[in-house]
Amino acid sequence: MTDQSLTRVDRDKEDKNMDKSNLSESVIFPKGEELPELFSKYFSGKAWLSMLVDRDNEFNCPIGNVTFEPGCRNNWHKHPGGQILLVTGGCGYYQEEGKPAQELNPGDVVLIAPNVKHWHGAAPDSWFVHLSVETNVNAGPAEWLEPVTDEEYSNL
Amino acid sequence: MTDQSLTRVDRDKEDKNMDKSNLSESVIFPKGEELPELFSKYFSGKAWLSMLVDRDNEFNCPIGNVTFEPGCRNNWHKHPGGQILLVTGGCGYYQEEGKPAQELNPGDVVLIAPNVKHWHGAAPDSWFVHLSVETNVNAGPAEWLEPVTDEEYSNL
Repeated sequence: MTDQSLTRVDRDKEDKNMDKSNLSESVIFPKGEELPELFSKYFSGKAWLSMLVDRDNEFNCPIGNVTFEPGCRNNWHKHPGGQILLVTGGCGYYQEEGKPAQELNPGDVVLIAPNVKHWHGAAPDSWFVHLSVETNVNAGPAEWLEPVTDEEYSNL
Repeated sequence: MTDQSLTRVDRDKEDKNMDKSNLSESVIFPKGEELPELFSKYFSGKAWLSMLVDRDNEFNCPIGNVTFEPGCRNNWHKHPGGQILLVTGGCGYYQEEGKPAQELNPGDVVLIAPNVKHWHGAAPDSWFVHLSVETNVNAGPAEWLEPVTDEEYSNL
């Protein structure tokens, strides 16, 4: 019984790390590949993308699974058609310009209205995973802006 | 230590039931309420719906979290604008008319093209949870058809 208990203790510890600081595999949906240069230049830190629904098809609803390493966040940006985030793992932040950042946890849903300047990313000590649903895609691609500075990020 | 171990055994058992046969709470996203009559009349068995993104807003992208009890499935139906399923928990099935049913597990994504006749629902011995993303909503509402008979369902 004691040996079995120790095994469980180890597994509990491992599960905790998976939740908060070492999501080396993504949660539920595939982690995919490290972001291509096209996007990574707008991120501080490493992130991974798996496109679950492609951009160019009859659904007009691109859906990606995005995994951020601890501390990783994207630049301030805007979506002309809006975006929906569905949080599936870890802990992160969403901030709109001029408002305080909101902490995000699994089960949270963020509705980002068209042309609202914002950023999202992981907490400093946690991996973070969300689905990104792009809406009204005919409105055009994201407009990428300046990075979230270390000072802004460290003052969350 | 023994008491602690027993607690862990109990929790493991509970976790297993959550996975496969007793998802009394939904997975990640809220379970919501039992389907209203508007939809429940097109389902065999009990299902729950939590609308994560409403139908009538600027996103044009209604997203619902749907939880099916074991054995529950919806009628054959069509979406004029298409639908995307993102499976988050349990085990279920998706079938298009004239094709074999496909088993669905967490992480699976189903792209249902406009006007394809299909049904989806839980396996006989498992709860089942998916996100439903309705696409091209301006094409109009779902067209509901005949139930999946017990004979069809038992022959999967």
